[in-house]
This record gives sequence, C-alpha cells and structure tokens, in this order.
Amino acid sequence: MFVQEVIDTIITDSCGDFRLEKTCDKLICGNPDTKVTGIVTTYMATVDVIKQAVACRANMIITHEPTFYTGKDINDWLDSDELFAAKKKLIEENEIAIWRYHDYMHRAKTDRIYDGFMHEIEWDRKLLQNNRVYEINEVTLEELAEYLKQKLSMSTIQIVGNPHMKCTRVGILLGGGSLGLGREQMPMELMREEKLDVMICGEIMEWTLCAYVNDATMLGLNKGMIVLGHERSEEAGMKYMAHWLAPLVEGTMVTFIDAKEPFTYL
Amino acid sequence: MFVQEVIDTIITDSCGDFRLEKTCDKLICGNPDTKVTGIVTTYMATVDVIKQAVACRANMIITHEPTFYTGKDINDWLDSDELFAAKKKLIEENEIAIWRYHDYMHRAKTDRIYDGFMHEIEWDRKLLQNNRVYEINEVTLEELAEYLKQKLSMSTIQIVGNPHMKCTRVGILLGGGSLGLGREQMPMELMREEKLDVMICGEIMEWTLCAYVNDATMLGLNKGMIVLGHERSEEAGMKYMAHWLAPLVEGTMVTFIDAKEPFTYL
Repeated sequence: MFVQEVIDTIITDSCGDFRLEKTCDKLICGNPDTKVTGIVTTYMATVDVIKQAVACRANMIITHEPTFYTGKDINDWLDSDELFAAKKKLIEENEIAIWRYHDYMHRAKTDRIYDGFMHEIEWDRKLLQNNRVYEINEVTLEELAEYLKQKLSMSTIQIVGNPHMKCTRVGILLGGGSLGLGREQMPMELMREEKLDVMICGEIMEWTLCAYVNDATMLGLNKGMIVLGHERSEEAGMKYMAHWLAPLVEGTMVTFIDAKEPFTYL
Repeated sequence: MFVQEVIDTIITDSCGDFRLEKTCDKLICGNPDTKVTGIVTTYMATVDVIKQAVACRANMIITHEPTFYTGKDINDWLDSDELFAAKKKLIEENEIAIWRYHDYMHRAKTDRIYDGFMHEIEWDRKLLQNNRVYEINEVTLEELAEYLKQKLSMSTIQIVGNPHMKCTRVGILLGGGSLGLGREQMPMELMREEKLDVMICGEIMEWTLCAYVNDATMLGLNKGMIVLGHERSEEAGMKYMAHWLAPLVEGTMVTFIDAKEPFTYL
C-alpha cells in the first residue's frame, strides 16, 4: 500500500464519507506516493519513536499529537532551530512519512481514543454512558488511582480530593478534553449534571476543575479528580489502533510504539 | 481604610496612574465601601483560605487567581451549583470582600509575582536578565529541582530531561506564563534565543515545551524543564505581597495565607 491509501483507508473506516474542511490530520512529513514498508502507531512521533520505527523497518508513523511542538504543527518559527534541524534530518534520511490522526480519531463512530483507554483499563466500553460517564462498584479515590497507575504503567499519579472518599460515578475526559474543549466550565458542568464523584482527566488547568474539586473537598462534598496527563491518557488509544488497523492494511506490518510519559517525578 | 481605598492604593503603587481598559482585577465579592478590619493575601481564595481569614478577623481577601473556577470569574453557569451556593454563603455570612489582583501585579514596575518568587528561593532579583533569564553556578537538573522542592515546600516535583544534565542558564516562566501567553512557541523561542539549559515552569501543556525538551534530551542536547505547577510557582508572590503591602495600609493587619498545592501524589 501507499501512504495516501493508508490514510484514506483509516479516514473512511473512521468516518465513512464525511470529511472535515479544517483539520490538523495532515501528512506532516514525507510523500503520499511512498510505498509503505511498515506502520507505527504512537501518541507522539518523538525522536525515540522515530528511531524505533527505523529499527523495525517501518517508514510510516501515525501520531495522535503534534510532531513539531505546536497544536497545528506550524514550523516557520523553527527555521534556525538546532533541534528541529536534527529531528528533520533523522526523518528525511530514513524517508519516514508522518501522518497525524487526531480529529478523525475522536470523531469516529465511537471515539477511538476512548475505545483504547477502556480496553486498556478493562472496563466494558459498552457501559460508557454519554461517551463520558461510567458507573463502577464502590472503591475509594486512592484505590481507583492505584488501579489506573497499575493498568497504565505509571510511577506517580496526581489526585485532588480526599483519598478515602467513595467513588461510583466516574467521568472520563482524556487528552485535552479535560481542558473543556473551548469551554472552561464544561468539565465542572459535566460533573454536576451527571452527579459524578470523580473525574479522570488528561491535561488540566489548576484554576478550573482542579480548583472546583479542591473547594468541594474543603466543603465536605464527595468530589475527586485523578490526573493522568495527556500522554498517559491517550497512549492506550494508539496501542489499540494497532489491533484494529492490522486487518485494514493486510500484508503491511503494524507496530505500536509507546512514546512514554515525558516526566520524571523527584 | 475602606475596600476601595485599599484597591486604589495597591494599583497606584503598582502602576502609577496607568489603568487597564480590560482587566480581571475586579471586586469579585463584597462592597467597595466596607471598612477593612484586616487583609489576607493568597494565591487563591479557596474555602479553607476564607475560613482562615474569618478566624483571623480579616474581611478583605486579595487573591491572585479566580475565586469561581474560570479565568474571568464568570458565574452565570453556577446558578444552580451546590458548591457555588455554599461558598457564596460562607463569603456573604462573614461579609468578606474578595478582590482579584492579577494583571496589575504582573504589570508593576517589576513583576511582583517574580519579585516574591526570587525572594522565596533566595536568588538575587537584580540579577534576573530580561525579567526571565537567570545565571547560576553549575548544578545538575536534579540538584536544582531538589533545591526548589525544599524552598517551595513541595513533596514531589516533575521534571523533563536527564536528571544529571548541567544547568547554568535558567529561564523562569511562572504561573500561566509558561503556557506562552497566547503564543504556544514562546517558551521554546525564549529557550533557544537565550541559550537556556533549563526552564522553570508554572502551568504547562504536554505538546509544546515539554515535547521540545523531551526530544532535545533524546538527541543528547543539554535541555531540561522543571514543572512547579501554577499554585506553587505563584504563591510566593502573594506571600511577599504581605511584606510590601503592610506599610501602604498602616494600621490595618495584613496576613498571608498559603492556599496550598491542590494535589496529592500517589
């Protein structure tokens, strides 16, 4: 298969004939006419991911998030950048195509980042209400956080709230979704309307939901928050993609490479 | 003194006759004509901060960040909110005035959040270049992070980069400043232009500076990042405010109350 064929196959499988007028889902590097030797799926095409793709002879990387450090992969500000030059050289010398699969992934029949996350933490995807709300058997906030730490291979997890509070109604907002998607109060409105005990978040801001849950705790209300970060909350979606993509591109090797959490906790 | 007098005194001391047309520095609760019994300075007027203000008989809280969970303290979405009702009741029953001091604080002759931070970590404010760049005797990234942890009373700190890398040129972007102030690439441009080894950050996004430093590390470049979070990076500015405000409001008690980091690390 050629790069463009892989792209078209994935978009059609995700959204049928629907096409976005504006999207960040673009071929960031490489040529649509290149014959694909192997495909790597990952949260982010970091330097290490690219090196590992080369090592397993894949020449197409499908990345969920940007390659060049801004939301829209704008790179005019990187002309004289030493790091950009080195990363671009690595990509070009190895003739790697990098395609971003973000908007169509979230807009698929079911949001495919959530599909992968639910699969990874072994919660039944079908029981997810409104795509964002889940009901579990009662556990404490600390127990839920420890469960997620283990399932998502995290060394440290940030929570807000009383670790001993009871959780049954759980909201899930992965990646940048927990920033509110353009409406700062959205995660709090969801928490209130759905009577959630706890929100599992990707990326956060301290002055919105975090402050709300903190105040709720101080008032003795049963509210908590678990912060997974952007990468940990979305990586499982790209891992799961390797499973569903393989039969669509039969004959082409598909490998998931974990971009890994960027943080060290001291 | 009355609430409005305190506000006018602080703005004039910060910026002389200059006034912003649009600003979030508003009286969020209370009455401008109330006689001030005591002033509390804090990063955020959380429920616990309000209770502590009441306990020390202060009826005016000066907060750097929002009281009601959105950047502009919009509260039309909170009409039927149980938490909002309880917090508002606490404020009104105790006749507390809450004033936000944010924009004028950052725009003062010297940014007063940075003044307080530099004082807290015992670095000479006068040696800060371009308001954001600082040169120190060589230490490792881990040593610098440990120093900040201790000075800012943190239990856990997030870093990106090799803990053993050497740091001498240090960038400082506190609070929301490390988000780029409307230009995602700003922190990276600063890092490049000023040949910084490490950036000390407040609030961050994983796909911008964090990804840049992560890639740089993978390429063997000497770049690192320390994430303090929003609250820990700005609280010291509000602590320092209690010192410089006291002589301006002579006869009125001024107390700093630490809003404290909202996170528990598991």
